[in-house]
Amino acid sequence: MKVVRYKATLAYDGTKFAGFQVQRQQRTVQGVVEKAIKTIAKSKQRIPVNGSGRTDSGVHALGQVIHFDFPFSLPAAAMLKALNSLLPLDVLVTDCQIAPPNFHARYDTTGKQYLYRVSQGRYTDPFRRFYTGHWRYGLDLARIKLALPDFIGQHDFSSFAASGGSITNKVRTIFTASVSEAANHELVFQFYGDGFLYNMVRIMMGVVLEIGNGRRPQHDILRLYQVRDRTQARYTAPASGLYLQKVYYGDGPADKSSKSD
Amino acid sequence: MKVVRYKATLAYDGTKFAGFQVQRQQRTVQGVVEKAIKTIAKSKQRIPVNGSGRTDSGVHALGQVIHFDFPFSLPAAAMLKALNSLLPLDVLVTDCQIAPPNFHARYDTTGKQYLYRVSQGRYTDPFRRFYTGHWRYGLDLARIKLALPDFIGQHDFSSFAASGGSITNKVRTIFTASVSEAANHELVFQFYGDGFLYNMVRIMMGVVLEIGNGRRPQHDILRLYQVRDRTQARYTAPASGLYLQKVYYGDGPADKSSKSD
Repeated sequence: MKVVRYKATLAYDGTKFAGFQVQRQQRTVQGVVEKAIKTIAKSKQRIPVNGSGRTDSGVHALGQVIHFDFPFSLPAAAMLKALNSLLPLDVLVTDCQIAPPNFHARYDTTGKQYLYRVSQGRYTDPFRRFYTGHWRYGLDLARIKLALPDFIGQHDFSSFAASGGSITNKVRTIFTASVSEAANHELVFQFYGDGFLYNMVRIMMGVVLEIGNGRRPQHDILRLYQVRDRTQARYTAPASGLYLQKVYYGDGPADKSSKSD
Repeated sequence: MKVVRYKATLAYDGTKFAGFQVQRQQRTVQGVVEKAIKTIAKSKQRIPVNGSGRTDSGVHALGQVIHFDFPFSLPAAAMLKALNSLLPLDVLVTDCQIAPPNFHARYDTTGKQYLYRVSQGRYTDPFRRFYTGHWRYGLDLARIKLALPDFIGQHDFSSFAASGGSITNKVRTIFTASVSEAANHELVFQFYGDGFLYNMVRIMMGVVLEIGNGRRPQHDILRLYQVRDRTQARYTAPASGLYLQKVYYGDGPADKSSKSD
């Protein structure tokens, strides 16, 4: 029987998961999705799920993308329905398509977009404690708006990546970095780039918040590119505020110009 | 030493509580608040907390009101700060005042306001599963808007109260009943009345949703007042959508007219 490759988009509340990637004895997104797929296939073998990348424990997704090879053909709409009827309520398949056999959720990405929600105020809002990063100190929005463009462009993000790991090339390109004000004194940050290193958005957020609070010079990001020293970026913003919003496969805003060549 | 009576307003995420009221071996809002007060007082005795009323497991509060007698005087702002530093992150004291010695959080109420959030769509949104009641069937907003005024006024709510319980007078007055549309196809209902019976808002919501879906006649609420039969109201909407929004003590919109006498 010929296997069929499916591409699916997932939204998940990361609160009760030990991250995306399968780990022994832990509840993970990949784990619950693989279990559902195995049930639909009535398979005794594991059917591996490939994600566009890992997300950490407590990190959420609005548009994580996965692919997997299914042992027989099922209409995409039936696959979506079957998955959602089997998955726990903290994971939702929002889209499902039959993909070309060579599509790869991780290797084919051309960009990713993350959101980071910051709640403010003296105390944490009980209803947003798992869904925002809470910042109780002052923030000067003008300083934040002046700092964010320093991220845009191609830079060495060594200072903004958790140490360890096998990736040696730490040069990445950020296409857009913005902030907007939302209800309840919330700030919503959006970062779109060609790729992100481990913990990169959370470390970037830590630096931005410290600039907003006046603990760092206005253009400290530029200095951090030079020093290539993760310890100088200090604070990592909490996982709870981070959302993988969208994964691009040649269809991102930044992909358009290169495609017109 | 003379005890001091405090009035405090609480917001809480009801998801991880077995309701408001203390129960053996269960995590309750009253239980965690009493524990914090006892710690502040360095007391060996229990210091009882009196709420405006109970909320069930999974029901939330934006403005629950409590009172308690503290063994010594502490400025209200210091009490608020001390409570919030000891309370778990799913309970927040939003206001604290020294109250007259005869103030009673339950007996002095003149009205309560509840919110009910309904999320729609085929599947439950992972991020709203604990914070809305999900309704996956059709809803005709015009039918809902035509039904809600049937709640307004003084009625016998026997059909809308969970059976059992010691309360025999089931006549209550509803001052306002409204619905508004929010982001993500959400409907937000608001009910303000002089008092609510056990499960009353959730049973009212069940009836309203069934009217909106066409499963009940347009003015079935009027019939339910007559039959005084809880079984005919059938469906109880989930706890997750319900919020105790505000408790009034002679300061509600409906209290104004009677005060001008």
